[in-house]
Amino acid sequence: MGRPLHNERFAETALPKRTALPVFSADSLSSVAYAPDEIVLTLALAGISAVALSPWVGLAVVLVTAVVVAAYRQNLRAYPSGGGDFEIASKNLGRKAGVVVGSALMVDFTLVVAVSMSAAAQYLAAAFTSLIDHRTEVALVGVLLAGLLNLRGQQFMGRAAVVPTYLFVIVMFVLIGVGVVESVTGGLTPAPSSSWDVLPTADQQTAWSTLAMVMLILRAFSSGAVSVTGVESVAGSVQYFKKPKGRNAGTVLTIMGAISCVLLMGTIYLAQRTGAVVVLDPAAQLRIDGRAPTEDFYQNPLLGQLARSVFGLDTPMFYVVILATVLVLVFAASTAFSGFPALGSRLARDSFLPRQLKARGDRFAFTNGIIALLVAAALLVVLFRANVNGLVQLYVVGVFTSFTLTQAGMVRHWRRQRRYVHEPAARRRLIGTTVLAHVAFVLSATVLVIVLVTKFAQGAWITVVAMCLLGGLMLAIRRHYDFVDRDLKLERNSSARALPSRVHAMIIVPSVRKPAMRALAYARASRPSTLEAIVVDVSPAITTRILDEWRRLEIPVPVTVLDAPYRNSVQPVIDHLHRVRRRSPRDLVVVYLPEYVVGTWWERILHNQSTRALAGRLRFEPGVMIASVPWRVDSGDPAQTSSAGSGLQDPSSERTETR
Amino acid sequence: MGRPLHNERFAETALPKRTALPVFSADSLSSVAYAPDEIVLTLALAGISAVALSPWVGLAVVLVTAVVVAAYRQNLRAYPSGGGDFEIASKNLGRKAGVVVGSALMVDFTLVVAVSMSAAAQYLAAAFTSLIDHRTEVALVGVLLAGLLNLRGQQFMGRAAVVPTYLFVIVMFVLIGVGVVESVTGGLTPAPSSSWDVLPTADQQTAWSTLAMVMLILRAFSSGAVSVTGVESVAGSVQYFKKPKGRNAGTVLTIMGAISCVLLMGTIYLAQRTGAVVVLDPAAQLRIDGRAPTEDFYQNPLLGQLARSVFGLDTPMFYVVILATVLVLVFAASTAFSGFPALGSRLARDSFLPRQLKARGDRFAFTNGIIALLVAAALLVVLFRANVNGLVQLYVVGVFTSFTLTQAGMVRHWRRQRRYVHEPAARRRLIGTTVLAHVAFVLSATVLVIVLVTKFAQGAWITVVAMCLLGGLMLAIRRHYDFVDRDLKLERNSSARALPSRVHAMIIVPSVRKPAMRALAYARASRPSTLEAIVVDVSPAITTRILDEWRRLEIPVPVTVLDAPYRNSVQPVIDHLHRVRRRSPRDLVVVYLPEYVVGTWWERILHNQSTRALAGRLRFEPGVMIASVPWRVDSGDPAQTSSAGSGLQDPSSERTETR
Repeated sequence: MGRPLHNERFAETALPKRTALPVFSADSLSSVAYAPDEIVLTLALAGISAVALSPWVGLAVVLVTAVVVAAYRQNLRAYPSGGGDFEIASKNLGRKAGVVVGSALMVDFTLVVAVSMSAAAQYLAAAFTSLIDHRTEVALVGVLLAGLLNLRGQQFMGRAAVVPTYLFVIVMFVLIGVGVVESVTGGLTPAPSSSWDVLPTADQQTAWSTLAMVMLILRAFSSGAVSVTGVESVAGSVQYFKKPKGRNAGTVLTIMGAISCVLLMGTIYLAQRTGAVVVLDPAAQLRIDGRAPTEDFYQNPLLGQLARSVFGLDTPMFYVVILATVLVLVFAASTAFSGFPALGSRLARDSFLPRQLKARGDRFAFTNGIIALLVAAALLVVLFRANVNGLVQLYVVGVFTSFTLTQAGMVRHWRRQRRYVHEPAARRRLIGTTVLAHVAFVLSATVLVIVLVTKFAQGAWITVVAMCLLGGLMLAIRRHYDFVDRDLKLERNSSARALPSRVHAMIIVPSVRKPAMRALAYARASRPSTLEAIVVDVSPAITTRILDEWRRLEIPVPVTVLDAPYRNSVQPVIDHLHRVRRRSPRDLVVVYLPEYVVGTWWERILHNQSTRALAGRLRFEPGVMIASVPWRVDSGDPAQTSSAGSGLQDPSSERTETR
Repeated sequence: MGRPLHNERFAETALPKRTALPVFSADSLSSVAYAPDEIVLTLALAGISAVALSPWVGLAVVLVTAVVVAAYRQNLRAYPSGGGDFEIASKNLGRKAGVVVGSALMVDFTLVVAVSMSAAAQYLAAAFTSLIDHRTEVALVGVLLAGLLNLRGQQFMGRAAVVPTYLFVIVMFVLIGVGVVESVTGGLTPAPSSSWDVLPTADQQTAWSTLAMVMLILRAFSSGAVSVTGVESVAGSVQYFKKPKGRNAGTVLTIMGAISCVLLMGTIYLAQRTGAVVVLDPAAQLRIDGRAPTEDFYQNPLLGQLARSVFGLDTPMFYVVILATVLVLVFAASTAFSGFPALGSRLARDSFLPRQLKARGDRFAFTNGIIALLVAAALLVVLFRANVNGLVQLYVVGVFTSFTLTQAGMVRHWRRQRRYVHEPAARRRLIGTTVLAHVAFVLSATVLVIVLVTKFAQGAWITVVAMCLLGGLMLAIRRHYDFVDRDLKLERNSSARALPSRVHAMIIVPSVRKPAMRALAYARASRPSTLEAIVVDVSPAITTRILDEWRRLEIPVPVTVLDAPYRNSVQPVIDHLHRVRRRSPRDLVVVYLPEYVVGTWWERILHNQSTRALAGRLRFEPGVMIASVPWRVDSGDPAQTSSAGSGLQDPSSERTETR
C-alpha cells in the first residue's frame, strides 16, 4: 500500500522534538490508562487497607522511571544511531545478549499491541455499555485497524499521532487539575465504587502472613512498572529525530518521563480521594450490605471512574476523557507497529532474521513485519479474551530484560571509556555517568527479578518461553548464514572462477512448437561446443510425432531420445546428464527449458509442471546451468513488443564503470 | 507410496474374469446393503400398506438392471478401450456431452465413497452398539482408510477385494437360502421391528391423494435404483480385463447384474416375511401401544434385522453377515478410489483437466486424484453426518445422466454401423442391438427424469449444481489449452525459429562470492557478443565493497552500477534491460542469476528471495533468456562430485537419432 518512498525523501521523515514527543510517547503515556488500575487491583487482593499503600507503590514506580530515563539519556548520546537496546547489548556484551534483547523486545511489541487494544476496548465499553460483552471483538478490530493504518506508512501515522497524544495529555492535566481543586475545596464527588465493601480474598485467609502481603505489594509494583515501558521505544527510534539526534531524543525522553510520572501519581491521588476501587473479580470481592453485584455489573476502569467523579456522568468531558484515552491507546499500538519492523530490519542486518527483511523501508519487509505482529497480537487478544489484567502478567518481563542487559552493556561501555578520558572535568562527568549506569543496572535487575518472581506463574512464563523460542530461532538463522558465508567466501584461485573448457547444450523438447523452437534458436545463438535436442519418450505416439516434425522442418540439430520406462520425465534427463558429465567432467552443461508464460495463477497450474520439476531437480546437479526460455503466450513477435513498459526509464540512473 | 511400476509390468495387471468379477462388482453388489432399506423406508412414508408394494418396486429395479446390463454388453464390445461412458458420449455426441458424462461420473464416484462408508458405519453400529453415536467418525475413518489403502496402489486393493466380495456373496446366499427354507417350513422368527406400528406421516394426512402416493412410490423406485449403479464402473475399467477385454467385461457384467438382482429380491422377500420395517424418523413414525421408541432406540438396517431373524441375535453368523457387509462396502469405496484417478487421467488426456494428470499410473496424478476424492467424500460425510438416506438423495443422478447420454451415443453409433453391415444375419443382429440401445436409452432417460423429479428438492439439486460447476471448469480448461495450442502452433517461417544476431550477457552480481563468480565463468564460457556485470546499488557500502573486490581480483568484465532509488533491486534491472533492448532490439539478452542451492525448505526461505523475484519478473520480458547458475552450498568442487548419484544409469536407454 502506498507508493514507495524515494531514498532522498528519507531525510524528510526526521522529526522535530515537538512532533517526536507525541509520536514516540503514546506508548509510554497511554500506560496511565491501565497501570494505576493494576496497582490498586493487586493491592485490593490484600484487603482494602492495603489500597492505602498505592501512593507508595506509585512513588517506587516513579523512582524507577526517573533512574531509567536518566540512564537512557546517556545511552542515547553514546549510541545515537538508532540501534537502541539491541545495538548496545550486542556491541558490549556479545551476540547472545543481543539476541536476548532482540527477542525480548519483539515479544514486548506484541504485548504493547495486545494490552493497549484490550484496554481501549475496556474504555469504550465504559462509555458505550452495549459493547461490554463484545470487548474481544472490539479489541480485535482495534488491532486490525492499527495494523492496516500502519501499512499506509510510518510517516502518516507519525504525523497523525500528534493530535491524540497532545489531546490526551491536556485532557489528563485538566482532569487531574480540576480533581485536585475539587478535592481541596471539598467539591469532589465520591466514586460510585467507593460504596462497595472489598472482601478479603481466599488466599488471604488461608495464607495470611507478612510474606504473602509483601509478595502482593511487590506484585502491585511489578504491574505498576508497565508505566516505565515506552522508554525502549524512543531508544529504538533515535534515527527519526532531527539532529543532534541523541540529545534531542534525550530531551524528549525526559519530558515524557516527567509527564508519565505526574499522570500516574495524579491518578493514584484522585483514586484515593474519590475512594474509587477496582478489583480482580467483582462477583467474589465486592459486596454492598453482603450482596454481590448483579450479573450485568461492569467495573469501570479507573480513569473512567475519575472522569465521572470529577466531571459527572454523561457530561461531554466524560466522553472526551474516554475518547482521548482510547485514541492514545490506539496510537500506542501504532508505535509498536512501526517499531517492530524497524527492529526486525536491524536484526536482519545482523543476520538474525531472513536477510530479505533488512532493507529499511522496503515494502516487502515492512508489510511482512506488520502482518506478523498483527497476527500475534490478535492471537493474544483472543486467547486472553481481551483481559487487560491477564495480559499485563506477560508484559514488563521483556522490557526489563532489555533494560537490564542494556545497562549491563552500558556499564562496560562507560568503564572502557575511562581509558580515553583524561581531562579532569570530563573524567568526573564520566564517573558520574558510570555510577548512574550501575545504579540503573542494579535497579532494572531488581525489578526484573521481582517481576519474574511475582508474575511467573501468573503468565510471565509464557513470555519467557516465547523469548527462548524466538532467540533460538534467531541464533539458528545466524549460524546458517555464517556457515553459508564461510562456504561462499572466494579464495584467490577458487575453482568457482575456473572457465569450463567446453559447453554442451541440451534442449528439452516436449513438443515441436514455438517455445521449443525459440529455446533451440537461443541455444544455437549461444554457439555451444555441442548441441543436442532431448526428447523423453513418455508416449511413443508423441515421440514419433516430434521426430516426424523434426525431419519435416529440417532442423539441423541431432535428437537424443531417452527411454522413460517409469513414465517419469525427470529421471531419464538426470541419468543422461550423468552420462554426459562422466564422459567430460570439466564441461559445462546448459539445459535449455522452454517455458510457456501465462498470466493468471490458475493458468500457471495448467502449464510447465514437468519443466518446473526438472528445473528443481537440476539445481542439485553440479556443473549444470539452467536456461529458461520464456515464451509469453499471446505475445506475438518479441521484436514488436520490445519497448513495452520502458517509458519509465531514466538514462541518468546508469553509470558504467570500466575496470 | 509404493515403488513406481515399470511400463512392462503393466500387462501383468490384466485381470482374469474370476478376479475381475469381485474387484469391479463390489460397488454394485454392496448396494444391497442400503438399496432395499431405501425402498422400504420410502414406501413406509406412504403407510404400512404401501410397504407391501416393495417387491413390485424391486422388480422394476430388476427390469432396469437387466436392460442396462444387456445394453452395456454391446457397448463394451463396441468400445473395449476402457474409455467407458465418457468415450462413448464424446465420440458420438461431441465434447459437451462428454464433459457432462465426465463431471457426472466424478460426482458419483464421490457419492459412492460417502454412501458406502456411511452405510458401513451404520452396520458396524448395529453390531457394536457403543458406536451408535459415533457413526460420523467411523465413516470418516473408513473414508481415510479406503483412500490410504488405495495410495498403496490399485493392484494391491484389486487382489485384496477378491476375498470380501466372494465372502459377501456367499454369506448373502446362505442368509437368503436359510431364510427362504425357514420361511417355507414356518421356522422364521419375526423381526423385532415387526411389532411396531408405523404411523402415517404428516404430509400423508394433509396432502393425501393418488398423486402423492404415486410420487412416493416413484421415489422409492428412484432410491432403489442405486442398485443399478456399478455398471459404469465396469465400463470404465475394461482395460484391466484379460483379452478379449470387451467380451470378458460383458460376461462379468452379466453375472454381476444377475447376482445383484437375486440379492435385492431375496432381501425384499425376507423383509416381507419377517415383517422387518425401517422408517425415516423412528421417533415420529413408530409406536407400540401408542408409545414412541425411547431416546436410545437404534434402527438396525435391513440386513442386520434379517440376520437376526434368520440366525438369531448374537450368533456367530449374525456377526459374519455384518462383517462381510462392512468389508464389501469398504471395497466398494475402494473401487471409486481406483476409478476416479483413471477417469481423471482420461479427461486430462482430452485436455479437460490439467495435462499433468494424464500420465496413467503416474504417482503424482494418482495421488492427487485420491486426495481430492478423499477430501470431497469426507466433506459429504461430515455435512450429512453419515446419514445414508440423506446421501442417497444426491446419488443416482450422475449415474443415470451417464447411462442416458451413453445410450444416446450408442443409438447414434449403431445407426451409423448400419451403413457398413450388409450380410443379412449380421444386419439382423445389428437391428436387434439398435433396438436394445433405443430401449435402454428411453428407460434410462425415464429413470433420470423420475429421479430428478422425485429427489430434486431432497438433495439432487446439490448434485446438479456440482456437475454444472465441474463441467464448466472442464470446458474452461479445455478452452484455455485450445487457445494455447493455436497460439504455439509453429508456422514454417515462424519468428520463433529466427536466430538472434548477437547475444548480450548480463550477470547479476549481489556480492563477490563463489556463486557470482561461477555465474561469471559460465557466462564467459558461453562467449556472448557483449558481457556486463550488473550491480544494483541498494546500499552504497555494499556497492563500494563489490567494486573494490572486482578491481582487486582483476576480473576482466565491465561493471554497470544501477541506481536503486526506491531500494528495490528488481525494477532497475528491468529498466536497464529495456534500454539495452531498445538499442538493439534483435539481440538476445541472457540474464545470468547466481543462485545458492540449499537443502531444506526453511533454508530456502533464507536465500534467493530477490533473485526469485527478478526471475519471475524477467519471464514477462520479450527477447530474454534466464540462466540460473546454481551453487550448491557445501558442494565443494563440482568436478569432484560430478559422478554422484549416477549409479542407476543404464546405457541402453539412450538412442541417438541423427537427422
